[in-house]
Amino acid sequence: MNRDLAGHSGAGAAARQSIRAGATGPTSGLAPGLVQANLIAVPADWAFDMLLFAQRNPKPCPIVDVLEPGQVESALAPGSDLRTDIPGYRVWENGSLIDEVTDATEIWQTHPDLVSFLIGCSFTFESGLIDAGIPIRHQEAGRNVPMYRTSTACRPAGKISGDMVVSMRPIPAHQVAEAVRITDRFPAVHGAPVHVGDPAQIGISDLDSPDFGDAPVIVDGDIPVFWACGVTPQAAVQASAPPFAVTHSPGKMFITDEPEDTFRR
Amino acid sequence: MNRDLAGHSGAGAAARQSIRAGATGPTSGLAPGLVQANLIAVPADWAFDMLLFAQRNPKPCPIVDVLEPGQVESALAPGSDLRTDIPGYRVWENGSLIDEVTDATEIWQTHPDLVSFLIGCSFTFESGLIDAGIPIRHQEAGRNVPMYRTSTACRPAGKISGDMVVSMRPIPAHQVAEAVRITDRFPAVHGAPVHVGDPAQIGISDLDSPDFGDAPVIVDGDIPVFWACGVTPQAAVQASAPPFAVTHSPGKMFITDEPEDTFRR
Repeated sequence: MNRDLAGHSGAGAAARQSIRAGATGPTSGLAPGLVQANLIAVPADWAFDMLLFAQRNPKPCPIVDVLEPGQVESALAPGSDLRTDIPGYRVWENGSLIDEVTDATEIWQTHPDLVSFLIGCSFTFESGLIDAGIPIRHQEAGRNVPMYRTSTACRPAGKISGDMVVSMRPIPAHQVAEAVRITDRFPAVHGAPVHVGDPAQIGISDLDSPDFGDAPVIVDGDIPVFWACGVTPQAAVQASAPPFAVTHSPGKMFITDEPEDTFRR
Repeated sequence: MNRDLAGHSGAGAAARQSIRAGATGPTSGLAPGLVQANLIAVPADWAFDMLLFAQRNPKPCPIVDVLEPGQVESALAPGSDLRTDIPGYRVWENGSLIDEVTDATEIWQTHPDLVSFLIGCSFTFESGLIDAGIPIRHQEAGRNVPMYRTSTACRPAGKISGDMVVSMRPIPAHQVAEAVRITDRFPAVHGAPVHVGDPAQIGISDLDSPDFGDAPVIVDGDIPVFWACGVTPQAAVQASAPPFAVTHSPGKMFITDEPEDTFRR
């Protein structure tokens, strides 16, 4: 891991600092070239099942870091604090969303045994797509990426099960192959697409009504391309109903200091 | 996963059947082309730490399957029984080896909550090396592969820590690059070597006295090449002293039905 390079640029620390100071927007496009991560934190007695769920479903749940019970500083971001450095958090009880907050300090006080999983985010490879001249429609429109529940079941683990969630980027038809080639190099941030084309085949009935994020901008000649999404654990929380969980709010990620090249294969 | 092909050949099931019926030798060279796996089983309350240890140390501990508490049939080998289908087992209490057995049925009776981890084994890629004309000295000599403790610390996880164990194959100097290239394609079975050449640099003082397995056969012009080894969890058991654990005996693996091509990248 190239921490020297990251420390030199300081873009990750600066982005986290602005979020800690109150910035609450989506993180797509922030600190380009650094790995962004989804958060799922569960009580210690659910941690084995969650880690196994991620291990068995590496496309939607590629783990980039695990913080042991009560830890809040990620090894991928020295000086970070998981409780304050994400723009928005969702709080879950028994599978139901009960609150959204921008500071999770109190949550860790009342649940000191939380085990936190950081899961690779496809925002990470967007800069690689842009470098190749592939348009990222939601970034150009200043929107959050659209995300959808699918009918594709994840492999269950212990008490945890659920369907895969995907993010969608409309890609000009002649650039689809290039987008596959580029993202395949990043297995730790979801890798190659799980589906190209007809949304109905994976159980998505209306592309204009995503389950998370904003409605897509689709240009004539674009093909919808779907990547496994780190919001999948939130669908698993809803389906599996652990007594308590904290996640990021969709589109609002934890920004690490890790250059995306670290995870290139 | 290509189970049809595996079911067609039946070589994995046949090998397991002969072991279940009493064969107790090393498994290197058996059922060529099928994935072989190391076993580490721990009580459920140590399972999260062990899974996290494996996740943090993917070179020595590449997980190919996890069996939930009490389960004994691997998804990679339908009809298998972990308690009888390995030629030899080691039984550990508080980090000390207390017994070696060839049938672990009673162990699972007294410890019904064991969580079992199957970890990729470098025997898997030996057939690929042989196909490329690279000699496997220990197979030619009918010996077990030599394995060594190193001074390279694994990344700890919770209560579990320990140094990496490596297997060594002497490779003719002109074929070292080819051996790296071939094994790099199999990250799920330890992948590329962790060290080439001087054993002292990784804390191995005497190549002729391995810590596990048999003494090496080294031919003039060979270079010692070291791969991360799935015996590493046994060194971690010794260093970390969980109250109880079961492992395979070094060199005596669990043979799956999974073609090694499944894990080729």
